[in-house]
Amino acid sequence: MSQFDNVSVIKKSNVYFDGRCVSHTVLFADGTRKTVGVIFPSQLTFNTAAPEIMEVLGGRCRVRLAGESGWQEYAAGQSFDVPGNSSFEIETLELLDYVCHFA
Amino acid sequence: MSQFDNVSVIKKSNVYFDGRCVSHTVLFADGTRKTVGVIFPSQLTFNTAAPEIMEVLGGRCRVRLAGESGWQEYAAGQSFDVPGNSSFEIETLELLDYVCHFA
Repeated sequence: MSQFDNVSVIKKSNVYFDGRCVSHTVLFADGTRKTVGVIFPSQLTFNTAAPEIMEVLGGRCRVRLAGESGWQEYAAGQSFDVPGNSSFEIETLELLDYVCHFA
Repeated sequence: MSQFDNVSVIKKSNVYFDGRCVSHTVLFADGTRKTVGVIFPSQLTFNTAAPEIMEVLGGRCRVRLAGESGWQEYAAGQSFDVPGNSSFEIETLELLDYVCHFA
């Protein structure tokens, strides 16, 4: 499925980290929310409030979740889960195209 | 209206000009299409196929349409029309948040 149907989209973008991350928010009829966005090549630390699933649509990144010692690499078609009230470090090796699913 | 309702959103981003322009495509039930996106500070030339209306949500830019000698400045709340099969130069003075409406 390459698109989300029957949704609302917030017109204004979300810009984080001086523009290294840009996303748009998508709202679903069931009250859930996702963001579709990109992360430019960089090394960033994201803090989570709600648990989230990061789905990689394109590009390549290395990720280290809070409390873990190892880095895990993810590419198109792969996802990783991040707990709520936590954080993860992400090193984007190639422009990352993603969907972030919030619980 | 800060959001589009009852639409479809293409998950993958559109990335142009080495990432200086990033957008997501929104599809409407009537078959029309818009993009929501950002342009980072830069000076770019966009070519148009269909006529389009660029609606500025945030930031500031100077624009010169093909065949015109003067530049016109636009900020949040303003829009400009671009004919089809044409082009425009845009100098983004501050990160531009926009909706592009296609005819």
